[in-house]
Amino acid sequence: MGKGRLEAFSDGVIAVIITVMVLEMKVPHGTDLEALAPIVPVFVTYVLSFVYVAIYWNNHHHLMHTVQHVNGAVLWANMHLLFWLSLVPFVTGWMSENHYAALPVATYGIVLMCAGIAYYFLAHCLMSTHGRDSAIARSLGADLKGKISVVIYAVAIPLAFVRWWLAFALYVLVAAIWFVPDTRIEKRSGQ
Amino acid sequence: MGKGRLEAFSDGVIAVIITVMVLEMKVPHGTDLEALAPIVPVFVTYVLSFVYVAIYWNNHHHLMHTVQHVNGAVLWANMHLLFWLSLVPFVTGWMSENHYAALPVATYGIVLMCAGIAYYFLAHCLMSTHGRDSAIARSLGADLKGKISVVIYAVAIPLAFVRWWLAFALYVLVAAIWFVPDTRIEKRSGQ
Amino acid sequence: MGKGRLEAFSDGVIAVIITVMVLEMKVPHGTDLEALAPIVPVFVTYVLSFVYVAIYWNNHHHLMHTVQHVNGAVLWANMHLLFWLSLVPFVTGWMSENHYAALPVATYGIVLMCAGIAYYFLAHCLMSTHGRDSAIARSLGADLKGKISVVIYAVAIPLAFVRWWLAFALYVLVAAIWFVPDTRIEKRSGQ
Amino acid sequence: MGKGRLEAFSDGVIAVIITVMVLEMKVPHGTDLEALAPIVPVFVTYVLSFVYVAIYWNNHHHLMHTVQHVNGAVLWANMHLLFWLSLVPFVTGWMSENHYAALPVATYGIVLMCAGIAYYFLAHCLMSTHGRDSAIARSLGADLKGKISVVIYAVAIPLAFVRWWLAFALYVLVAAIWFVPDTRIEKRSGQ
Repeated sequence: MGKGRLEAFSDGVIAVIITVMVLEMKVPHGTDLEALAPIVPVFVTYVLSFVYVAIYWNNHHHLMHTVQHVNGAVLWANMHLLFWLSLVPFVTGWMSENHYAALPVATYGIVLMCAGIAYYFLAHCLMSTHGRDSAIARSLGADLKGKISVVIYAVAIPLAFVRWWLAFALYVLVAAIWFVPDTRIEKRSGQ
Repeated sequence: MGKGRLEAFSDGVIAVIITVMVLEMKVPHGTDLEALAPIVPVFVTYVLSFVYVAIYWNNHHHLMHTVQHVNGAVLWANMHLLFWLSLVPFVTGWMSENHYAALPVATYGIVLMCAGIAYYFLAHCLMSTHGRDSAIARSLGADLKGKISVVIYAVAIPLAFVRWWLAFALYVLVAAIWFVPDTRIEKRSGQ
Repeated sequence: MGKGRLEAFSDGVIAVIITVMVLEMKVPHGTDLEALAPIVPVFVTYVLSFVYVAIYWNNHHHLMHTVQHVNGAVLWANMHLLFWLSLVPFVTGWMSENHYAALPVATYGIVLMCAGIAYYFLAHCLMSTHGRDSAIARSLGADLKGKISVVIYAVAIPLAFVRWWLAFALYVLVAAIWFVPDTRIEKRSGQ
Repeated sequence: MGKGRLEAFSDGVIAVIITVMVLEMKVPHGTDLEALAPIVPVFVTYVLSFVYVAIYWNNHHHLMHTVQHVNGAVLWANMHLLFWLSLVPFVTGWMSENHYAALPVATYGIVLMCAGIAYYFLAHCLMSTHGRDSAIARSLGADLKGKISVVIYAVAIPLAFVRWWLAFALYVLVAAIWFVPDTRIEKRSGQ
């Protein structure tokens, strides 16, 4: 099967996710700077989540770029990734409306970690379909960034119960690591 | 007419359906585990509905894969399927916010059954357009899974008024039957 | 310019419109048949609006099918149509939550009439771009259905202040007239 | 990398933005003309924001039309533009529900100005990828409209604290300047 509809459906789901998050930012009732104060943590979290979802879309774009064909297993691995991404607006809203309480901050990390693991599954599912010598296998290589991200999440989640900003800082760190698009694929696939 | 826009529009509608369902999960006000408790049934139902909509997208993908052209009747058969799928977020929310009361659980099954029947109509509409000897007709075959699903729904819906979890278990059973993508089409179409 | 992105964007907007309408159906709090009673008018209106938006998508599909190129005027004529369609969820919600009071029923008709006029503009804008002898000009012909629809709306809107169901019946009549996809284009373009 | 998915994803995000804005128009509870009165400023702002988002989509369409390939920097410049556009429903709601109070009106202008600057970045990012002599560089030319828009926003934002309608009139003026699609690109690229 071709990859066209998989890409189109993923684009649609990620486009809706990234846009409905902003609906979590309730329009404030006041009109002065004080009315904006409770929005600030919501806005900061929105920016972080926007960057995270954007990173996943970029990486998905790079990953699928070298793919030639998909099968049923890839369809479900992709759905699994979209499932965890679809929970991002929920945990974004929960974390930001509760002044970064421990449990919501940890839950935010859990959802991100699951999305990271789902992305890893998808990449390896595609790799096993295309063979060890395929362009996609060579470009993924040791997938260092993917493994480091999951380790950082695993550290950050318990830290949320000590100091919320420690966990939050680690989430920002992972985003920063990925902000540079997955250049391994871009370069090695000779684009 | 080509099938491109039919696929693109269906992708868009299903992408929105699968994503707005998560908006039914209201962000809890508390920040401890107790605050998450009322979310649990909502989350379980969300997972089930996500899997169902994902199954429909996968099957739609497999079905349209072998299609060469569409006509007005196919457009409306497709719209009819999307109509029932568009009700899934509504019945998901109603069932999960009411602790699986009998009527919402039965209504959930009715919407799923109608979607199943609509999918059956769409498949047969495509089959009659392409002829008895077409790739699509051969891959659909006796369409055993489609018929079994509708029978199971018909059993589950009245059972919802006896024990809600009997109906719910049958809904999970149908999802399990379909979880394996429609391999009949994948194989027989020689992909 | 090619028509690809115009189609993709219109598909996206119409997919969101047709799906967010269902969000206007608030999940009822009760779990018995009585709790469903206030949903009935909302559901009936939802079905009508779903059919209307589906008709517009089908007609848009047929219309763009014969188009070869688009220009800035066509882009804006298309946006104008999408604008009126984007108001359909709003008037659907207003009409159905107010037991078909006169003003909301009339407003519903006004939005439909404006969408009809916008579709007329779009068709004629495309026709003038492609010339009097083009496939699109021949298939549109006298555009009888489009003109009749606007006349029926113009009759229905004041009738909403006499008896709401007279206006509602005329809206259903227009939907019935269009339900048959725009077969003129389908046939004459030789598909 | 090809530009197909960048266009598809942008189409999806902009389609959701332009459609969810209408959800900010809460369905009024009354059914007479008085009940519509508080909707009027919301509707006027909705129309303005719809036109703005439509302008950005049209310009994005024209801009990407001449593009041949994209890289990681372009992906992020595009995401940056989508980020500011995603805030338009929020500021539309805040401004229109507060009778054009000074701060919301100024914030509306700030978001529009940031979107304008992000579009400028995207255009120049594409230009530097394609070279000074490319079709895109020639069609952008001095990018007079882009620069004038930012200047007008910079004037309008402080004016919001003097008279809200002065700022609002300037926002309408910028929309009017852009309403004519980016004909420079259309013409010079020889379409």
